[in-house]
Amino acid sequence: MDKKAVLLLGDGSNVTDMRYASGFSAPDNFLYMECGTRKICAVSALEYNRAVASVIPGVEVRRSGASHLETIKELCSLCEVNTVVVPDSFPVGMAEKIKEAGINLEISEARLYPRREFKTLREVQKITASLRAAEAGCRRAIEVLRESGISRERTLVWQGKPLTSEILRAEIDCTMLRLGMIAEDTICAGGLQAAQPHNTGSGVLPADYPIVLDIFPRSAATGYWGDLTRTVVKGTPSDFMRKAYDAVFEAREFTKECIRPGAIPSEIHKCAENILAKRGFTTGCSDKGDYGFFHGLGHGVGLDIHEFPRLNPRTHTPLKPGIVVTDEPGLYYPDKGGIRLEDMIYLNEEGKAVTLTEIEDQFIIE
Amino acid sequence: MDKKAVLLLGDGSNVTDMRYASGFSAPDNFLYMECGTRKICAVSALEYNRAVASVIPGVEVRRSGASHLETIKELCSLCEVNTVVVPDSFPVGMAEKIKEAGINLEISEARLYPRREFKTLREVQKITASLRAAEAGCRRAIEVLRESGISRERTLVWQGKPLTSEILRAEIDCTMLRLGMIAEDTICAGGLQAAQPHNTGSGVLPADYPIVLDIFPRSAATGYWGDLTRTVVKGTPSDFMRKAYDAVFEAREFTKECIRPGAIPSEIHKCAENILAKRGFTTGCSDKGDYGFFHGLGHGVGLDIHEFPRLNPRTHTPLKPGIVVTDEPGLYYPDKGGIRLEDMIYLNEEGKAVTLTEIEDQFIIE
Repeated sequence: MDKKAVLLLGDGSNVTDMRYASGFSAPDNFLYMECGTRKICAVSALEYNRAVASVIPGVEVRRSGASHLETIKELCSLCEVNTVVVPDSFPVGMAEKIKEAGINLEISEARLYPRREFKTLREVQKITASLRAAEAGCRRAIEVLRESGISRERTLVWQGKPLTSEILRAEIDCTMLRLGMIAEDTICAGGLQAAQPHNTGSGVLPADYPIVLDIFPRSAATGYWGDLTRTVVKGTPSDFMRKAYDAVFEAREFTKECIRPGAIPSEIHKCAENILAKRGFTTGCSDKGDYGFFHGLGHGVGLDIHEFPRLNPRTHTPLKPGIVVTDEPGLYYPDKGGIRLEDMIYLNEEGKAVTLTEIEDQFIIE
Repeated sequence: MDKKAVLLLGDGSNVTDMRYASGFSAPDNFLYMECGTRKICAVSALEYNRAVASVIPGVEVRRSGASHLETIKELCSLCEVNTVVVPDSFPVGMAEKIKEAGINLEISEARLYPRREFKTLREVQKITASLRAAEAGCRRAIEVLRESGISRERTLVWQGKPLTSEILRAEIDCTMLRLGMIAEDTICAGGLQAAQPHNTGSGVLPADYPIVLDIFPRSAATGYWGDLTRTVVKGTPSDFMRKAYDAVFEAREFTKECIRPGAIPSEIHKCAENILAKRGFTTGCSDKGDYGFFHGLGHGVGLDIHEFPRLNPRTHTPLKPGIVVTDEPGLYYPDKGGIRLEDMIYLNEEGKAVTLTEIEDQFIIE
C-alpha cells in the first residue's frame, strides 16, 4: 500500500508554499508535511510557541527532532507514509538521505499548489494593500523630485545637497516601512544605470534623464507583494526618450486590454514588442550590450514577487480568471538610459481585467 | 578522465555562495560554474550588462541559454567537464535532469567554501559597518523610548499616540535604511511576546516589561549582515526580570572570554547555561511552552545571518581564528516575558577576541 505525503523543507520566505499551506513563516528552515487532510509543521523549540500562535486552523505544530532527517522519519511514521512527494526545488542532499532511510521520494514535476496562481478575494486585497504602499512610496519620490532643483552640472539637488539614488530610495522605503512593508532592492536608477533593468541605482541623480522607480514591497504581516514601476524625469528629456516613453505607455495600455480569459501570454508579449517596433524601437544586441525590450512583459504576483502566470515569449498556456499579473513593457539603451511602466492587473471571476494600480502616470516632474 | 566543476544555481541572496564566489547577486536564479581557476556566471539577458559590471575580476559572464539545463550542458562542454559537484541544498529536480542528460552529479557533503567561516579584514569591516547601522537603529529606539511617556494603563505613549512595536520598528528600520541597509523582521517585542525569541512584536508596547530589540540589517551594497540585541524597559521592571537581566548580562560577559582558539562551542554554550542556572534560571518545558534558555548561544555572521561556526550544544569542533560570531544568551518565560543581550565577537588572527559591538548596555530607560 503506497501512502503518500507532500513534504516541504525551507524557511517560509524562500519556500513560500510553506507559508501558503501552513500560515507560518520563519527565518530558519522548518518542515511541513501534508497527508490527505492532515497538515503538520515541525519547528525548533525556538519557534514552537510562535508557530502554535500563527498557523492556519487545522495545522498541527510539533517539535522537530534531533535533525531534519529524524523529524522526517517521525512524521512519516506518524502519518503512516512510505512515500514523500517533494517539489523540484527540494534540497538534493536531504532527498538522498530520505532515500537512504528507506523512504520513497517522488519529485513533483507539477507545482504542488497550482491554485496559488488563482487568487481569492482576500489575497487580492492583500496584494492591493502592498500595491497601495508602493504607490505611497512613489508619491513620496515624486514629492522629493518636485522639491528638488537642478545644479549647473545638470544634476539634482534636494535640501541643499546632491540628491542620490540612495537618498531617494530611503525616502521611498521609509514611507513604505511606516506602512508595515519590507522593502528590498527598490530601484531608483537614473541616467545610463536605468538601461540595466535590475540596476538599483547609485550616486547622484542626473537631470534630463529618465529615472526608473521600480517599487515592490512585501507586507511584513501577510507576506504578499505589490509591484509598481513609474519612470520620471526632472528637467528636459531628449526627443528620443520622450518618444520611447510614449511607446512604452502605449504598449502597456494596449496590452492591458489583451489580458483576458483564453488569451495566450506569448501573443500578448509579442503584441507589446510589435507596438514598440512599429514606433521604431526594435530589440537586439550590440557591442555595448542588449537594447530595446528584452525582458518578459509581466508576471504573476502573490507570496512570491515573480510567480505564475508569466507573460513572456515562452508561455503559451491560455490565461484564466483569478490571476494577478504585472504589465510592464520597457525600453533600454546602454548609451541613452531606460524607461519602464508597470501596472498590476487582476482578472476577476467574471473574466474582467481590473487595473489594481491607481497612481497616475507622470513623466516630467515640474 | 574525470574532470569536475562546482555548479551553483540560485539567486545570490538565497545561495550566498554565489555572491561570495562571483561577486554578483540577482533577485532571480542564475548559474555559476567553477572549474579550477575558471569561473563563469551565466545570467539572463535582463541581467547581462549589470553582471558584467559587478563580477569579481576574473569571473566570466555569459548569457544563459534556453533553459537552466541547456545552459548547464553548455557550461560543461565549455569547461570540458563530465562531473558537476553541487551543494546539498541544490534543487533535486535539476539534479535529476542533469543526471538524465548524462552528466555525473556529486553532492558535496562538505561546504564548498569552508573559508567563508574565516573572515578577511575587509569582510570584518563590512560586517562592522552593518553592525554600526544596527547600533544607530538601536540608539534611535532608545531615543524614542526616552521621549515616551506612560499612560494610566501602563502602556507607552509617544508624540501623543500609543507607541506600538510597529512604530518603534519603523523608527529603527528607517534609521538603518538611510545608512544603506536592508532591514527585515527587526524584533521589537514587549510583554509576553518577548518570551518567543523570533516574535517580531505587534501592538501597543507595555511599560514595566522588558522590550527585546533584536536588530539585524544587511548592507544593500555588500550583502554582509550585522546583528545586535538589547533589552530595555520603560518604567519599573519586576524583581524577577531585574535578576534575569543581570544573569543574562553575566552569561554574555563571561562567555565572551571563552571565545578563543581551541575552545569548544558546546562547552561555551554549557557555560552560559550553568551561569543562568546557578542564578536560579533553569531551562525546561511546561504546559505553557518552553522556558529558560532554549536556543543556541551564538552563530557566525557574514553573507548569511546564521552561518558557521555555531555556538550551540551540538557543535564540538574547536574554534579557530578569523571567525565572527554572536554571543547572545537569553531567558524566556511564557507568563513573564523575555530578555536577550547580543554582542558580536571577532577572533582575530592573533587569536584575540575583539568585541565589535560598541553600543553600551542599558536596561532601564529614564
